[in-house]
Amino acid sequence: MSNEHILFDFLEKVWNGKDAGSVEEYVYPEYKIHIDTGDPWEGKTLNLEEFKVRLKYSFDSFPDMHFSILSSVADGNYVAITWIMTGTNLGPIGGFPPTGKSIETNGATIYHFNNGKVCGHSQVFDRTTVMKQLGFIS
Amino acid sequence: MSNEHILFDFLEKVWNGKDAGSVEEYVYPEYKIHIDTGDPWEGKTLNLEEFKVRLKYSFDSFPDMHFSILSSVADGNYVAITWIMTGTNLGPIGGFPPTGKSIETNGATIYHFNNGKVCGHSQVFDRTTVMKQLGFIS
Repeated sequence: MSNEHILFDFLEKVWNGKDAGSVEEYVYPEYKIHIDTGDPWEGKTLNLEEFKVRLKYSFDSFPDMHFSILSSVADGNYVAITWIMTGTNLGPIGGFPPTGKSIETNGATIYHFNNGKVCGHSQVFDRTTVMKQLGFIS
Repeated sequence: MSNEHILFDFLEKVWNGKDAGSVEEYVYPEYKIHIDTGDPWEGKTLNLEEFKVRLKYSFDSFPDMHFSILSSVADGNYVAITWIMTGTNLGPIGGFPPTGKSIETNGATIYHFNNGKVCGHSQVFDRTTVMKQLGFIS
């Protein structure tokens, strides 16, 4: 199975399906978050348990968080995708109570692979739009 | 001017326009190539003269190299774009003589900014398609 195919399955099962039990199948035991502005784990290398904590952190804020892939480019141990993320803010974000508001934003991620497992990423997304949609900025 | 706007100008003038004289205007004096599989400078930090050598290396192989931006996402000091690159192989690539063949490929790049100048990137593109188009692999 190609890294691109593995990535699509990973996003569908782990992120869209919220199936923490699939983490071992797709995620390398040392997962490095290279660039992800504002992410509390940016620059860190996560083991599988820490990866699951990071998933829970996202799902607690946006229980229906969903990624749709717009485009994909594969090259050896890297796969880059652009995506649309949607979600409803039904849990706290940082110290802020849930707003109940919906978000929709664009992003791009370069995923790193090691032996057919996802072992890290660099990610950029339109955070300004999200903060406006949540009403945090005008 | 936003980092996104600066990036569009940089790509248009420096890469599409082949204007090495514009490098100082857009490029930070320490430019790090984080990920760029197969690029001879991957992992290195380039000064402006080295950046120009890298440009010449690309333009010698593909004098009409051109990037068209498909999508763009900006977030603080990062701007991610997806692109189509076209070019005609009219100069040597590595030890291989020019093939005269045209290439067209998709890629994604996350550009890093420092004080309004481009200071590095992580990049993925469909290298397999390029090698097929050049006839290096079937």
